[in-house]
Amino acid sequence: MYKIAIIGYGNLGFHLVNHLSEAGHIITQVFTRDKSKTRISKYKIDFIDDLNLLNSDADVYFIPVKDDALNEVARLLSLRGKIVAHCSASVEMTVLKNSTENFGVFYPLQTFSREVEVDFKNIPILIEGVNKKTISVLKEIASSLSDEVIEVNQQQRLAVHVAAVFANNFSNYLFSVAEEILKKENISYKILLPLIEETVRKVKEHAPSKSQTGPAKREDDKTIQKHLKFLSNKKELKNLYSIITEQIKSKK
Amino acid sequence: MYKIAIIGYGNLGFHLVNHLSEAGHIITQVFTRDKSKTRISKYKIDFIDDLNLLNSDADVYFIPVKDDALNEVARLLSLRGKIVAHCSASVEMTVLKNSTENFGVFYPLQTFSREVEVDFKNIPILIEGVNKKTISVLKEIASSLSDEVIEVNQQQRLAVHVAAVFANNFSNYLFSVAEEILKKENISYKILLPLIEETVRKVKEHAPSKSQTGPAKREDDKTIQKHLKFLSNKKELKNLYSIITEQIKSKK
Repeated sequence: MYKIAIIGYGNLGFHLVNHLSEAGHIITQVFTRDKSKTRISKYKIDFIDDLNLLNSDADVYFIPVKDDALNEVARLLSLRGKIVAHCSASVEMTVLKNSTENFGVFYPLQTFSREVEVDFKNIPILIEGVNKKTISVLKEIASSLSDEVIEVNQQQRLAVHVAAVFANNFSNYLFSVAEEILKKENISYKILLPLIEETVRKVKEHAPSKSQTGPAKREDDKTIQKHLKFLSNKKELKNLYSIITEQIKSKK
Repeated sequence: MYKIAIIGYGNLGFHLVNHLSEAGHIITQVFTRDKSKTRISKYKIDFIDDLNLLNSDADVYFIPVKDDALNEVARLLSLRGKIVAHCSASVEMTVLKNSTENFGVFYPLQTFSREVEVDFKNIPILIEGVNKKTISVLKEIASSLSDEVIEVNQQQRLAVHVAAVFANNFSNYLFSVAEEILKKENISYKILLPLIEETVRKVKEHAPSKSQTGPAKREDDKTIQKHLKFLSNKKELKNLYSIITEQIKSKK
């Protein structure tokens, strides 16, 4: 059990407060800029809206704030001896080096919505730390939430974030391209849901590199030409189609 | 109940035979090139390996063969008065016009693996037909398998296929890009599965165009630059990252 302060109460902050409490940790304080807008947790929380009110009761300070705000928050924190971790995918941990000698990263690899309950047990948590003590404490806390705790270095964490952008943000963009194409023909994108679910089901069983299908994979140029003709007045999408098709072909 | 012959016994043919039988239809004959290699269905089937042996007992003839084989098969069929439908995503139905006056398309929108049992009830089936009789019979058979039967025209079916390539084949390719990036850092792509599942869960609730997230969407150029630098010695992936990022930005 650790005493933990949470600096930032966005989607991730909100879920951290709840899940860390459930896991038996004590949340000493939660910083949020506008207390009046704060969604109330089921746990009794000491909210503060001024970082000067942050006390030294906690062992560990988490900073789940937007990347842009990290520098500013770090500049205001003086927490010698404490463990301080940000929760960002791609910001160097050294952003915290003036706040404490025990700085690190606590990065849960998931996209959080405030309304949607998450099962932290399955969410990989990536840990980075400047020294053994920091890594050990962050790992212990992560393990109290999740079964998937991974110690990484800066390069690996960046790799995971880039990979996540391809697998999550960019695949969502492809879904929205499909939505756009179907909308023009008065068809709901929802007819694609069983296919999308099957794509994901397969990825759970086999590496995606092994389960590629489609016209590009089988070099079905007749179909590819039909598709490019269909997209001929959507220049951007035609371009995207060509590029991904060429890349799939080149992997054969 | 219809009497149905199935010409082609690949993954789709196999599942059609089983599910049409379960739905109460009678499978009169199944054509497959190599009977010895044929996986036995739990239903007793009259297999033929020569199209000259195809008899006229059936009301409806389905042709679930590869696009390339369709022309050749169609050329060999003379089925005046019968309803004949191919199962292809992007081939014109007129490929069958010399085989019968009642030609059409019966296209289940799903990717089929032989080993994986499918729930046909949720699979959209796209129907196209040259005349009302053909459409009506194909719709009736489709409705006996699925709750999602949609009558389309050639342009709509092509749109659905292009959309499916983006949503299924291309998103799988993005997953394999993620796999490649992580592999180089000795991390399994499986750590992305909870994120991928959450992406899909969201798409079930909200249109993908409404749930775009990530550095491109929030125009977080600092992170984008870090990612491009990370990809600087992977020219193809860097190019793909840039193009999708620009397209997401331009949709704002």
